[in-house]
Amino acid sequence: MSFIGRLCDMIGTQPALSAEERGAVVMSFEDTVAVMYAGWSASSAVAARRIFADGGARLLDGSYVQSPEHAALVHGIAGHALDYDDVQLTSVTHPSIVLVAALMAMCDARPNLAPRMIDAYAVGLGANIALGEVLGFEHYDRGWHATSTIGPLSAAAALAYLLELEGPAVRSALALAAAQAGGFQRNFGTEAKHVQAGQAAAAGLRSVLMAEAGIAGCPDIFGERGFFDLYGGASVAADPDKVEIAPNALSVSRKLFPCCYLTHRMIGAALAARRTLGAEMPEKARIVLRVPYGGMRPLHVTDPQNGAEAKFCATYCTAVALAQGTVGLQDFEDSAVFRPDIRNLMARIEVIEDALEGDMPVGVDHGTVRLQISAGGQTLAEAEAVFYPGAPQAPATPEAFDAKVSDCLSIWHQQTGQRLTLADFRRHLHEKICADAAHCP
Amino acid sequence: MSFIGRLCDMIGTQPALSAEERGAVVMSFEDTVAVMYAGWSASSAVAARRIFADGGARLLDGSYVQSPEHAALVHGIAGHALDYDDVQLTSVTHPSIVLVAALMAMCDARPNLAPRMIDAYAVGLGANIALGEVLGFEHYDRGWHATSTIGPLSAAAALAYLLELEGPAVRSALALAAAQAGGFQRNFGTEAKHVQAGQAAAAGLRSVLMAEAGIAGCPDIFGERGFFDLYGGASVAADPDKVEIAPNALSVSRKLFPCCYLTHRMIGAALAARRTLGAEMPEKARIVLRVPYGGMRPLHVTDPQNGAEAKFCATYCTAVALAQGTVGLQDFEDSAVFRPDIRNLMARIEVIEDALEGDMPVGVDHGTVRLQISAGGQTLAEAEAVFYPGAPQAPATPEAFDAKVSDCLSIWHQQTGQRLTLADFRRHLHEKICADAAHCP
Repeated sequence: MSFIGRLCDMIGTQPALSAEERGAVVMSFEDTVAVMYAGWSASSAVAARRIFADGGARLLDGSYVQSPEHAALVHGIAGHALDYDDVQLTSVTHPSIVLVAALMAMCDARPNLAPRMIDAYAVGLGANIALGEVLGFEHYDRGWHATSTIGPLSAAAALAYLLELEGPAVRSALALAAAQAGGFQRNFGTEAKHVQAGQAAAAGLRSVLMAEAGIAGCPDIFGERGFFDLYGGASVAADPDKVEIAPNALSVSRKLFPCCYLTHRMIGAALAARRTLGAEMPEKARIVLRVPYGGMRPLHVTDPQNGAEAKFCATYCTAVALAQGTVGLQDFEDSAVFRPDIRNLMARIEVIEDALEGDMPVGVDHGTVRLQISAGGQTLAEAEAVFYPGAPQAPATPEAFDAKVSDCLSIWHQQTGQRLTLADFRRHLHEKICADAAHCP
Repeated sequence: MSFIGRLCDMIGTQPALSAEERGAVVMSFEDTVAVMYAGWSASSAVAARRIFADGGARLLDGSYVQSPEHAALVHGIAGHALDYDDVQLTSVTHPSIVLVAALMAMCDARPNLAPRMIDAYAVGLGANIALGEVLGFEHYDRGWHATSTIGPLSAAAALAYLLELEGPAVRSALALAAAQAGGFQRNFGTEAKHVQAGQAAAAGLRSVLMAEAGIAGCPDIFGERGFFDLYGGASVAADPDKVEIAPNALSVSRKLFPCCYLTHRMIGAALAARRTLGAEMPEKARIVLRVPYGGMRPLHVTDPQNGAEAKFCATYCTAVALAQGTVGLQDFEDSAVFRPDIRNLMARIEVIEDALEGDMPVGVDHGTVRLQISAGGQTLAEAEAVFYPGAPQAPATPEAFDAKVSDCLSIWHQQTGQRLTLADFRRHLHEKICADAAHCP
């Protein structure tokens, strides 16, 4: 059956999630809402709340904005402001920030739908992954911010499930969502990146509200001169009609460091090399970082001038990991990026990106990141990272995950004065999204 | 100087408009607001008003929606619902619906800015034309709805001028606007096309509000892997750094028929051929319509099932013109599209689109549309249309323009019961947009 037909079938069917899968979705909600709290005081989030203040849509902090779309926008901005929200490697996207912000906004307006949120998330994530498989890595490679090109469609899929849209309305929602696909990697390192994630959530919401009200779009936006042709072109990685489309709950990678995910294998390799070397780094050490093709795509910053830019600087993130053995939120405060010891180490890191050999990859989890430290012609340490830290193949430990959530809540406390314990955070969230407490982990 | 530098210069400079140019902008406002009134009861506009009802932003009819963005969206949908709003041929866009909807929404929220609207429109139209010259026809040819890809940027340019944004904020507004560029010709013939126009206006507004509040985007969204690369690619028609960028007030083409502008030269040639032939069309006449390359791009409908689809059907529009000698709003009511005499005539029209010879054109006003009527081996009538009816080279007469506006107001009256005379309509509008009555025609 056609891509659109199978996508609509998935949207029209309750996913059969196992307890493990439901637990994974609940973790995605926890992770995403935690980073919203942590990013709440980021300048982009503060500005967006001020611009769109007053109205009928409630935010996490109890304040209000003009509409549910603006709630999705503001929550999306806050949750993406620190680049600490989860990612999905096939599609090279941040799926949960878009899905969760959109679902929260809709369910805040219609609380009776909340018990369907977990299933809706799995439908949305399934759509996100299938779209990413068709577009392949070349979509991202060309400069699109896949989170905000694919995001409106995956949010629309989730919300169409949530609202039980049927038949032509589902197809219209997808066509209306695709018409809002956009966003550039050129905006990475600026607040516009946060906005792009928030806009994807708001776009999904707008498209579904319109389709529900009977506004029609093209019945197959994936046909000729449609979404795949214009955003993928001749370079689509897979025949849409042959790509698997299924609800998914398990394919996200949690982020353990608050910087671009493409730096995470570099950080992983740097931490491993540091352990081999011991704490001492010889003054004249030379560091070579080898990354697979595409691994440097969004990392266009070489001389970061502020914390936001530093999140997209390969040598900065690697140097911090080598120097400290940790990479945390404080390393992306503006004052942190000019530290002389870090700058000194950055100058000694050479990054080599492999050329493309063979076909363009799908996703960004191909190949291996390798780091070598040498001095005076001698290799002092070598390490490699095959999997991304926090990826399904190298999941965060429960302790590391709890530590991240607690860290996010403590930033919220520092910046707003409002205290929220991990236990209370979890309880509030589970009450909201779990129809039946037994379904929550 | 670079494209972005010159674009920002234009946005930062008051345009020196002649009285004729100011008059032309006022006509663009009249034309655009008139078609908003005419489209007010279109199903897409009615649904959008219902979905986003209640809040602080006022609409033309005195009702309210949730936010200024939603006002721009709803006015944009209403004004584009009949496909009767003006076009610009270089960029293959409907510029005024986007600019006017965005400017109205901003000035309704901040009435003190209204006296700057005419200048702001000229800045926005200048941006729209320059962007279209760079992207060239291939952008449209590939399937993008240029109105809604270019529109967010031109609306942002107009609003950035209106608000007197400066320096980095202008650049951020353009980067944030570009991140909302999107929209498909595949949605033509459905209500999603109206939505795409409205979204472009709303997107421009959102981007400028954000930039004004200090949210930063990339300082040059036209650089590598930016707007031109992703929406134009290798096929951009002109070097951005060499394209002229200047305020513009005179380059729009008014529409005299409520259907896709690509049908208008066909209608023009059909009306001329009909005059040559006299009223009688022989039963077995064969009609050949020759159109230049690209002239059929959005006209993908061959068997229209409703009025909206008929607007994108070349043979339908041509047949109506041949049969009646007029093409009016009533021809795009759903019940009109199945008339047997029109269907019979449609079946006898052969459309031949020229192949591309030489370079891809810029815009759609190249070449000539030719129509030939023959029977029994004899040519009965021949006619051609070089210019689009209503284009700058073949402008609407004042009488034809007044008749169109009056027709729009009479539809508004029929559908809402509210009466508005041409004189009152004009007076209200002029009071709003002209700082000084002497500047209004």
